[in-house]
Formats: sequence, structure tokens, C-alpha cells
Amino acid sequence: MSNEYDVTKRNKVRQLRENAAYDKEVVHGVLDAGLVASVGFVQDGVPVVVPMIFGRDGETLYLHGARKARVVRLLEQSEQACVNVTLLDGIVFARSTFNSSMNYRSATVFGTPQLVDGHDDKLRAMRVISEHTMPGRWAEVRDSHEREVKMTGVIALNIETASAKISSGMPEDEDEDYDIPIWAGVLPIENRLTSLRSDDRLIENIEPSDAVRSLENKLL
Amino acid sequence: MSNEYDVTKRNKVRQLRENAAYDKEVVHGVLDAGLVASVGFVQDGVPVVVPMIFGRDGETLYLHGARKARVVRLLEQSEQACVNVTLLDGIVFARSTFNSSMNYRSATVFGTPQLVDGHDDKLRAMRVISEHTMPGRWAEVRDSHEREVKMTGVIALNIETASAKISSGMPEDEDEDYDIPIWAGVLPIENRLTSLRSDDRLIENIEPSDAVRSLENKLL
Repeated sequence: MSNEYDVTKRNKVRQLRENAAYDKEVVHGVLDAGLVASVGFVQDGVPVVVPMIFGRDGETLYLHGARKARVVRLLEQSEQACVNVTLLDGIVFARSTFNSSMNYRSATVFGTPQLVDGHDDKLRAMRVISEHTMPGRWAEVRDSHEREVKMTGVIALNIETASAKISSGMPEDEDEDYDIPIWAGVLPIENRLTSLRSDDRLIENIEPSDAVRSLENKLL
Repeated sequence: MSNEYDVTKRNKVRQLRENAAYDKEVVHGVLDAGLVASVGFVQDGVPVVVPMIFGRDGETLYLHGARKARVVRLLEQSEQACVNVTLLDGIVFARSTFNSSMNYRSATVFGTPQLVDGHDDKLRAMRVISEHTMPGRWAEVRDSHEREVKMTGVIALNIETASAKISSGMPEDEDEDYDIPIWAGVLPIENRLTSLRSDDRLIENIEPSDAVRSLENKLL
């Protein structure tokens, strides 16, 4: 199995190529760091972008929603979908507007969405999504009711091709601009899971598990 | 002028309708809080989602990229584009997987993209984008070179219809699940601009301006 996605017309990064990566590990790393995916599909010829939580198992992304949700029904019918995950890492203040930019990690995946059918397969996929968003939680909560699994629409998207684009570091200014007497640098952005807040209706003396607690102060 | 976007097939929120808003102020608020937009367009019938920085002036969103960039060329030719801005505010740990979710602010905009032509109009739009991302910076940096403006492709997207979806607060569990002895609550997510880091090639005794400094520790 190749370690890289094939470069095709769809996934080829054309701008700032030096920031592009087709390495599967790099793409997976960005996907795994994000908590929300921007899922693109086409409805009556018009593009629609919907934020969704997701999970990854090898070369398959799983998405879910209400079984009757538009996004599930349309993905089910779509030949192709596009999923982008972007994390912002900083604002880059260059000495000109032109060279100012953002630091970020971004991964874009193309594939054919397929409805996951059958109670067991759906449950497996739902577990992948749950473990991506709240690792360790699946084993703690009550089992899903059969009705709940029925009401959930699960989409599997096999990664046919993908790319990552990662920008980091300081501004790159024009040579002659370094003499301009203006501050330049980066304002880093932190995306952090903070501190747990308990539900008001918690029964007494119940503490969060180690799995949940270990998510506190985690940086995305 | 109406304070709300008309509800049409495109922007109607179907799931969790109680979280939907069509109020222009609410939609603008979410757009203005975000630093990156997920821009959806169609290439050869296939959806593509690209993260872009943006700015808003009234009912117009501005996007930009290299003049020759695929995203600019395709948006220029597109009848319709979709722009989504999502900010994640927390992971909601319910007592079941089914009721677990995320807290978030999300706004989705539909409109017809148009290429902005002419040096002055482009410059005005570029200023809107710059001020959205780094308020106050436009007045500090050197003027854009004519060549730089030429190399920049600017797209204006008039907001034809839009919606927001905002989810906040604690989990909503099934009545019978509140007796399950498991911790439940929210793990808030903070998206924060942190502390400025100076470029290594800064000339001596140059400090960041008040405008730039005031962005430190800002929450998105």
C-alpha cells in the first residue's frame, strides 16, 4: 500500500505548493486533530457545506446525522463528497498586506459516500465517531437503544484521494520590506478543551472518569 | 429592509430547528466571530470545500486568493456558492451516545459569487478582509503595490439567503437516563488568540501597535 495519495486534478494543491502534503500520515494527522469537518455536497446543482462531527478508521471517514436529515439523504445519493478539516494556528502579521496570512493545518478528502446499513455496522461506525470526539466515553455510557441506531443515518466515505496543506512559522516578506519600521510576527491561536462543567442534574457523588478528565486542557 | 433572511429550501434548518436563526444580526455575529470560512463550489459536478479567510461588509462577503487560483477561477464562473463559518464551543457529554453532541455557533450563507474588478474596488474589498482578520493593521502596513493587487483575485458574495444554528448549554437526556450513575456535562472549548511572537528579523526597538496588541488573549 502506498504511503501517499495519488495526485490528481481534484486533490492537487496549486497555490503554495511547498506547503502541500499527500502523505497519508500527514493527512490522517490533520483529520485526527480536528473535531469538526466541513462536508460539501451538491443539491440541485448548488454546493452545500455542512459542519459535521466525524471519525476515521483507516482510509474510511464516518459521518452521521439524523437518518432523515438532508445531509444524510443527499450524501447517500451523491457520487462524490468533499470533506475539509481545518485548524487555525495563528495570524501571520507580515510587513505588507500581501504577505500577511494565517498559519493552519488543513486536510481535504474526496470520496464516494455510502450509507452504512445494518445494526452492527452502524454501531461500529457510531463508535468510531464517538471515540474520535470523546475517547473512552463509548464504554461508559449505556448501550444505544435499537430505536436510536435506527434513527441515526451513518455515512462511510472511503478516502479516494486527499491532500493536506500546512502553514507554520513567521511571515515571509519581500527582501526590501524588512527595512520598514513596523512590527511583524505571529499571533498564535490556541484551540483548547478547557475544564469540565458538571450538569446541574448530576446525581450526587458522581465524578468524571479518568478518560473524560484526561481531555481537560487538551490542545487541538 | 427586513431583519431576517427569507426561509427557502436552501437555507431552511430541518434538524434541531429550535437552534435555528434567520435573524441577520445573529448570522452576522457568527460570521464576524470566525476567522476562516469553508467555501463550497462545484468543479465538474463534484463538490469542493476550501478554507478561506474572509470579510463582511453589510450583506456582502469578500473572499480572496491568488488571481490564478482554482478557487477564484471557479467561484468566478459559479452561479452559486455556499459559505459556512463554524466555531466549536464545547463537547456535550450526555448520559447516552445518542444525546451527546457539540456546542457550536454556525452560519451558512448562499449567494452568487462575482469577481471584483478594478483597482479601487479590489483594494476596498481587500481592506475589508484585512480588517476582519487583523483589525487596525491596514493603516500600519505599507500600501499595496499595484502588482500585488493585480495578482489578487477578489470575490464578492452577496448574501442571498442564510441561516445560523447555535447550540449551547448542558446535555438534554431522556428522562429515564438521569438516574444512570455516570458523569455528564460539558467540556468547553476555547479558541483564543494568545501572545504575540516577534519575527526574528524585526528591526531593533520596534514594538507592536496598540491595535495589534489588543488582539492578544482575545476569544473567538
